[in-house]
Amino acid sequence: MANTENCPKVGIVMGSDSDMPVMAKAADILEELGIPYEMTVISAHREPDVFFEYAKSAEEKGFKVIIAGAGMAAHLPGMCAAIFPMPVIGIPMHTTSLGGRDSLYSIVQMPSGIPVATVAINGGANAGLLAAKILATSDAELLGKLKAYSTKLKEQVEAKDAKLQEIGYKAYLEGMKK
Amino acid sequence: MANTENCPKVGIVMGSDSDMPVMAKAADILEELGIPYEMTVISAHREPDVFFEYAKSAEEKGFKVIIAGAGMAAHLPGMCAAIFPMPVIGIPMHTTSLGGRDSLYSIVQMPSGIPVATVAINGGANAGLLAAKILATSDAELLGKLKAYSTKLKEQVEAKDAKLQEIGYKAYLEGMKK
Amino acid sequence: MANTENCPKVGIVMGSDSDMPVMAKAADILEELGIPYEMTVISAHREPDVFFEYAKSAEEKGFKVIIAGAGMAAHLPGMCAAIFPMPVIGIPMHTTSLGGRDSLYSIVQMPSGIPVATVAINGGANAGLLAAKILATSDAELLGKLKAYSTKLKEQVEAKDAKLQEIGYKAYLEGMKK
Amino acid sequence: MANTENCPKVGIVMGSDSDMPVMAKAADILEELGIPYEMTVISAHREPDVFFEYAKSAEEKGFKVIIAGAGMAAHLPGMCAAIFPMPVIGIPMHTTSLGGRDSLYSIVQMPSGIPVATVAINGGANAGLLAAKILATSDAELLGKLKAYSTKLKEQVEAKDAKLQEIGYKAYLEGMKK
Amino acid sequence: MANTENCPKVGIVMGSDSDMPVMAKAADILEELGIPYEMTVISAHREPDVFFEYAKSAEEKGFKVIIAGAGMAAHLPGMCAAIFPMPVIGIPMHTTSLGGRDSLYSIVQMPSGIPVATVAINGGANAGLLAAKILATSDAELLGKLKAYSTKLKEQVEAKDAKLQEIGYKAYLEGMKK
Amino acid sequence: MANTENCPKVGIVMGSDSDMPVMAKAADILEELGIPYEMTVISAHREPDVFFEYAKSAEEKGFKVIIAGAGMAAHLPGMCAAIFPMPVIGIPMHTTSLGGRDSLYSIVQMPSGIPVATVAINGGANAGLLAAKILATSDAELLGKLKAYSTKLKEQVEAKDAKLQEIGYKAYLEGMKK
Amino acid sequence: MANTENCPKVGIVMGSDSDMPVMAKAADILEELGIPYEMTVISAHREPDVFFEYAKSAEEKGFKVIIAGAGMAAHLPGMCAAIFPMPVIGIPMHTTSLGGRDSLYSIVQMPSGIPVATVAINGGANAGLLAAKILATSDAELLGKLKAYSTKLKEQVEAKDAKLQEIGYKAYLEGMKK
Amino acid sequence: MANTENCPKVGIVMGSDSDMPVMAKAADILEELGIPYEMTVISAHREPDVFFEYAKSAEEKGFKVIIAGAGMAAHLPGMCAAIFPMPVIGIPMHTTSLGGRDSLYSIVQMPSGIPVATVAINGGANAGLLAAKILATSDAELLGKLKAYSTKLKEQVEAKDAKLQEIGYKAYLEGMKK
Repeated sequence: MANTENCPKVGIVMGSDSDMPVMAKAADILEELGIPYEMTVISAHREPDVFFEYAKSAEEKGFKVIIAGAGMAAHLPGMCAAIFPMPVIGIPMHTTSLGGRDSLYSIVQMPSGIPVATVAINGGANAGLLAAKILATSDAELLGKLKAYSTKLKEQVEAKDAKLQEIGYKAYLEGMKK
Repeated sequence: MANTENCPKVGIVMGSDSDMPVMAKAADILEELGIPYEMTVISAHREPDVFFEYAKSAEEKGFKVIIAGAGMAAHLPGMCAAIFPMPVIGIPMHTTSLGGRDSLYSIVQMPSGIPVATVAINGGANAGLLAAKILATSDAELLGKLKAYSTKLKEQVEAKDAKLQEIGYKAYLEGMKK
Repeated sequence: MANTENCPKVGIVMGSDSDMPVMAKAADILEELGIPYEMTVISAHREPDVFFEYAKSAEEKGFKVIIAGAGMAAHLPGMCAAIFPMPVIGIPMHTTSLGGRDSLYSIVQMPSGIPVATVAINGGANAGLLAAKILATSDAELLGKLKAYSTKLKEQVEAKDAKLQEIGYKAYLEGMKK
Repeated sequence: MANTENCPKVGIVMGSDSDMPVMAKAADILEELGIPYEMTVISAHREPDVFFEYAKSAEEKGFKVIIAGAGMAAHLPGMCAAIFPMPVIGIPMHTTSLGGRDSLYSIVQMPSGIPVATVAINGGANAGLLAAKILATSDAELLGKLKAYSTKLKEQVEAKDAKLQEIGYKAYLEGMKK
Repeated sequence: MANTENCPKVGIVMGSDSDMPVMAKAADILEELGIPYEMTVISAHREPDVFFEYAKSAEEKGFKVIIAGAGMAAHLPGMCAAIFPMPVIGIPMHTTSLGGRDSLYSIVQMPSGIPVATVAINGGANAGLLAAKILATSDAELLGKLKAYSTKLKEQVEAKDAKLQEIGYKAYLEGMKK
Repeated sequence: MANTENCPKVGIVMGSDSDMPVMAKAADILEELGIPYEMTVISAHREPDVFFEYAKSAEEKGFKVIIAGAGMAAHLPGMCAAIFPMPVIGIPMHTTSLGGRDSLYSIVQMPSGIPVATVAINGGANAGLLAAKILATSDAELLGKLKAYSTKLKEQVEAKDAKLQEIGYKAYLEGMKK
Repeated sequence: MANTENCPKVGIVMGSDSDMPVMAKAADILEELGIPYEMTVISAHREPDVFFEYAKSAEEKGFKVIIAGAGMAAHLPGMCAAIFPMPVIGIPMHTTSLGGRDSLYSIVQMPSGIPVATVAINGGANAGLLAAKILATSDAELLGKLKAYSTKLKEQVEAKDAKLQEIGYKAYLEGMKK
Repeated sequence: MANTENCPKVGIVMGSDSDMPVMAKAADILEELGIPYEMTVISAHREPDVFFEYAKSAEEKGFKVIIAGAGMAAHLPGMCAAIFPMPVIGIPMHTTSLGGRDSLYSIVQMPSGIPVATVAINGGANAGLLAAKILATSDAELLGKLKAYSTKLKEQVEAKDAKLQEIGYKAYLEGMKK
């Protein structure tokens, strides 16, 4: 194939569009870092055939990583990992009754042989970053972008501390309330 | 088909043979009540194709109920329920680290549209009984057997109480230690 | 009796009318699928005699399944299962302090011999579907309706994905906020 | 009635004889304090009719307090409290998978109107003491015995401390290993 | 003493006035049943001397039962039980971070020898009822009032069910939203 | 050094400015008790070098105690304790999904050799008081101020109780709603 | 006072001698660092008067820190902190049913105004070290000993790693089994 | 660089040699797949300088992935991720008191910006496999080996099922006991 540079390298998949606010944070990170991706809504429970086809064709489409988000009895990440041979990142969704413990346990407690790289509850941005770090193991340019991203995070904290030192905590707190 | 009476009506499936001591209790109940069943070891994670084929052909084979047991990130029952159109009973396995909470949440917290009839952690016998109760909704003879089974349970408790009244709790306790 | 077709086949019972928003979802499903049912408010704790009479007469009234919802120390489903010989489906209610863990454990952790088919916390719709699946083990027409229901669920997800592919996640997210 | 002094004042009831090691500690306390009691094995789940009869006749038999122990989906104490008009003390049994949280929540989280006086997981002795304290609200002699019991507990701790002061913690620890 | 009828028989004590909405429900029940009580705000942590004096003088003041409510590391009920020789009822307060599990465990998990009769999280009304049931073990008139109270509860549920049967669940739900 | 009296004795550090409302309560206490402190925003995760420098230079700057607050996988307090040789007080932040259990476990469950003095979830004021108590072990004047602070707390409770005795619980409750 | 050097500076107190294996680790550390201490068994629940006297006289006896260990509804550390004006360190004991969560919550979740410096479940050694760190805020010699202790810990890890590098993980594992 | 093929590509690091039985499973997988790695014992708490140096030099040494295991307040994986710019895989260790929930939360609940790819409690083998999958995103030969590994897992399950079909569950269970 002459040009695969614009092929999606990361598949972002969620079981329900209610997960989109969290999944969008993963996409935002990939966009910021210039990584092509494809976002899809597919339910492993409601359309198992569609899901199967998706997971089986993922390698062929050029995906190197799948980011899968799901809530409650969150089977989507684990079932992706059962089929797709490269890394699957799982995002446990916050849930009203169990706070996301159900999603977390359903994603992280995978049996031996089928790992899912699990991030924090509602950890959309971290899923995007982890996908980028995985790709950066063989992409020096992307690694450079990730280091720049880290520097930006560091500077944001430094700016907050500088403001605190300047105006004191009482004024800082007042400013937070606005 | 002229005679389906001996076709398996219940599929018992587990993701790992380490679940067999619990799943065997379900089979014991079905045998006691004369219900034909088929027991299989299939991992939704380690052999997704085999699993898919199993779940898709279950109706055709004459199954009316599937009993699925699984531990940790227990996807087997929910994935069965995504494909098989009749009741799926899920048995959460006890786990060393989380006591089975991981299995329980992964099985019971199914999203709207795809129920799994969940029983207690390690509740093999109850899964067998629930399958029988489901079949008994259209089988008066089986319903009769279930009532007799309940009577037997009642008599067992009555016998224990009678013994307690006869020998007193201190002797009873001594007897339990032997 | 010449005609039992319109007899209620499913009993829906709740311990408090505060459970009604959840229990109504079970009734909605049964109505959609054309399954006759009877809904009642009975407290096993506040009116044990009424409850006992209800559970004992359920078989005679033609019930094939009971759906029982309860919160906190949720005894209603388990006590139904102690008396009614066919399947009892339990719905654990969400609770303010423990998120429904109390209801879930009180319903699912039944002792050997007395299963309750437990669905997710606040899982009203799934309880209705599970009751339908149980009845569908001996009712081919109903099984057909359930398959059509599944197809509808699948199409809903497909429509959402089509919209996502069309407008992109940023516009989709904007649309969700409205 | 001429003489009710030897009538059982406390009913001790458990759902399974596996609870007896814990329930026996309640009986031991009652014996030590000279309070007549009756111990029974009755399962609310396996013999609901027997249970109902028991709970309904408890007042007539002269019971002033019922101590009910149960594990997992522990309905026995709450169902006693639904019928018996005087105090019901609930003992949550330790359970293998959930450590007794299931029993505890099923017993303590009773709805408004139906209290169960819950003690610690496996708290058999405390259930016996609580029953005695309840009876002591109208029995000065029993109150005196309870005060003496408290003094004994205090002296036991004092004796342990005296030994520690005498031999030091290293020798004390050695002695504990034997 | 010639007339102790109007002496407080129940002490209601809370560690912080933020617990008052829950404790007031206990007082409401006692008022409804005509049981004299005394309500106090005393912190075992912030004023241990005042607390000690309170607990030590409780018997002398005629208290037969103490109802103690507390949240988080809830020591008040247990410390009352360490000093007062008759029943202490503990009410665990709901807490923002742990939902009241902290309060519940701090109250119910008392060591052997010092029981606290624990009710549900925020279970103010049940604490009042349990105090009444304790006093009713030696007060036939009060026992009669408690039975009437139970009848009233039963009738409330029956009225709700009658309304449901009359107007159907959809209208009932509409009515709940108003 | 001629005059170290105005050197900060307590370092207050937080990983994110979102923790400031809680950390400010610690600072408020230190200000009230006249203890010089320095408050900083430093993220052990986003700027590990800055953090390392901070922790290593803390002793030299005259800090006797560090108060560190952090949420979720809260590493800041433990990493401070790995480097700073005097007491580190950890404040676990409340979290949306796990209520602060994640923060609490990440702070309190330190391995042998590296203690963190952990206070309650969101326990900012208590962290400030604990720092003061630590300094008071060698500062009699500060100890006097702490005793006065305790007296003030006691008087606040007494005032609330006096008001309750004066106006009764119903008026008190009404007043709370305003 | 002429010579207080040998007065106990740390009080170690436990509610039950079953806590001694954990508390002994605190004493071991204090002995190793040459800090005089006094160890006592006192139950706040079983001998509240003895406890009160202990806590009130602690300052006078020269204690600068109290280390209090307790299990289940662990009130001892919090009640010490209510009376003793200097730091109280709490050690939550592991418990069979709840793994020590009950002890941990009862100790760490103290209300505002009364901090307890909580260490890990069964964290005896860390409690001893924390007491030493507190005393080291005004004792340069002790601070030096603590730094040496840290160096020793570091060297222990380095020795283990050196062994691993030398013999490889397979031999290392074999050695651990012996 | 002429030849980096034998440079370690994966760093395996643990905070304590007690974690080695779990970490060894990760190494076993890497050996089986022919991936060069380096295993080290380094405590972020007991030797922060050594740890810092390790994490900072990891990229230079050629590491593409770090696998970090830790228990309780498990800071090692998160602190690695704060410094090393490529993927860090965290293994939460099982713990006696909290079953590994403490380790899990301390590892998975990382703040935005610093992901840790978390696997199951004690999930050593899965950590090794995940590292391999990450490397396989740019190594077709390794990807082939991973597919072969999956086939082997599938065949193991098939063999177990074949045996079950041949000898039946009762004989199978008997065989498991041996």
